[in-house]
Amino acid sequence: MGERVAFIGLGVMGYPMAGHLAAGGHDVVVYNRTAEKAQKWAKEHKGSTALTPREAAADADFVFACVGNDDDVRAVTIGDDGAFQSMKEGAVFTDNTTASADVARELHAAGNGKGIHFLDAPVSGGQAGAENGILTVMVGGDSEPYARAEPLINCFARMCQLMGPSGSGQITKMVNQICIAGLVQGLSEGLHFAKQAGIDPVSVVEVISKGAAQSWQMENRYQTMAKNEFEFGFAVDWMRKDLNICLDTARRIGAKLPVTALVDQFYAEVQDMGGSRWDTSSLIARLDR
Amino acid sequence: MGERVAFIGLGVMGYPMAGHLAAGGHDVVVYNRTAEKAQKWAKEHKGSTALTPREAAADADFVFACVGNDDDVRAVTIGDDGAFQSMKEGAVFTDNTTASADVARELHAAGNGKGIHFLDAPVSGGQAGAENGILTVMVGGDSEPYARAEPLINCFARMCQLMGPSGSGQITKMVNQICIAGLVQGLSEGLHFAKQAGIDPVSVVEVISKGAAQSWQMENRYQTMAKNEFEFGFAVDWMRKDLNICLDTARRIGAKLPVTALVDQFYAEVQDMGGSRWDTSSLIARLDR
Repeated sequence: MGERVAFIGLGVMGYPMAGHLAAGGHDVVVYNRTAEKAQKWAKEHKGSTALTPREAAADADFVFACVGNDDDVRAVTIGDDGAFQSMKEGAVFTDNTTASADVARELHAAGNGKGIHFLDAPVSGGQAGAENGILTVMVGGDSEPYARAEPLINCFARMCQLMGPSGSGQITKMVNQICIAGLVQGLSEGLHFAKQAGIDPVSVVEVISKGAAQSWQMENRYQTMAKNEFEFGFAVDWMRKDLNICLDTARRIGAKLPVTALVDQFYAEVQDMGGSRWDTSSLIARLDR
Repeated sequence: MGERVAFIGLGVMGYPMAGHLAAGGHDVVVYNRTAEKAQKWAKEHKGSTALTPREAAADADFVFACVGNDDDVRAVTIGDDGAFQSMKEGAVFTDNTTASADVARELHAAGNGKGIHFLDAPVSGGQAGAENGILTVMVGGDSEPYARAEPLINCFARMCQLMGPSGSGQITKMVNQICIAGLVQGLSEGLHFAKQAGIDPVSVVEVISKGAAQSWQMENRYQTMAKNEFEFGFAVDWMRKDLNICLDTARRIGAKLPVTALVDQFYAEVQDMGGSRWDTSSLIARLDR
């Protein structure tokens, strides 16, 4: 039996995620800032469209959102046309946006006052993960609404985990991005060094990727990094947005992120090189230039 | 049919490596600076001992060495008591020390003048890899002596690869260490951030280790890093020796290693904290303190 679901934000991630919810047998109403995309989605998936998040959420038991940043999340929830203005008591709002833990806690509290449940549930796995329905979803919030939302999240996830109270999903996603930043810079320095030393970086990786230097990034990016091709995934602009959240949070909780801060500055240089839409492995481009 | 082999340097790596050569049916003579260790080895493996590298190498077709640094490699080869003083024409010297590519090229050239082949063949896989005979061996040098030495190297290796001309083995090992330096610092910052945010780093890793942040270091070190235990592998002192070779080489070939240089400084701070013998994952200790 399908649930009544609203989905807000049909970007490169949200569009296929909403599609997997529809394919899972749920009755999905979509809202998107650019209405044409919502109409295209509704046609493809035999769903319906709404003119505002408020309208989309009015009949839904589960509302999902995948939008841009903290302010966008506030707008589609507590804004005048936001979902919190119409959601039923007991309904669950699952936010798949990568945003701050603070906005998660703020909206969790705002929902509490109205009997609305708010889960922060950022995802990893990129566009390919969204399209194939195999995302990893890291959730913060209360366990009762989580238990109800989990089967729906699993329509687009391979792994879904409740990490702790409100904000914990966002913190987990930040740890993920912090690990990646230092790792990709190390990998870039290694492959740049191989190139400068006149040794084929592809043969080097084929030997060292069996041992202690191995990583997903090494296995999945070394061939494109060796050729300075950066068309395969998460863009530098998005990474800087995420790292800004990490660095801002770190300042407030007293965590030290010296290399993450430095790598953020390196990505700023990649943007200056025209690499805003390049993938995150383009850190090697500023070494090789 | 066993070959006549000499092995120079019975440290935590060389001792078991020489053992695997003996177990492979070869006739092994060992030399070690501290003679007691050579005698212990010879008793265990039914081998024999020599008083100098020169004496050990006199009858050997294959000479192996696993010593400390560039100067040690020079001493056991071209030094007065070195192997090059006695080695037969056509014999192969395989150096498993992590040293500079320059010393490899210097000794390759010195050997050429005497009909002695020199291979630079640093290893990765640590003490456990040496004990279990599953090291990765990255070789630089000429293909004819490599083809003869390879079956012997495979006594202690799971993977052995000729990377190119003399020095290429050392360059490959440097790329390995450069990748690890940035990666371990990124991982340390991620786990430190989780601790500061009050979320269990072990649960975080169990979720994010399925995706783009995954690495060998993450999978093999997160539980000990979460508990600030650093007794599991390659020591900080040795890592700084290797990073010094990388940074020195980078200066000469014009490679840029900003994060590797920074991480080397962080390891200097770990040494000041009393962590000279801690493993490389102890970078998190200077963040958590």
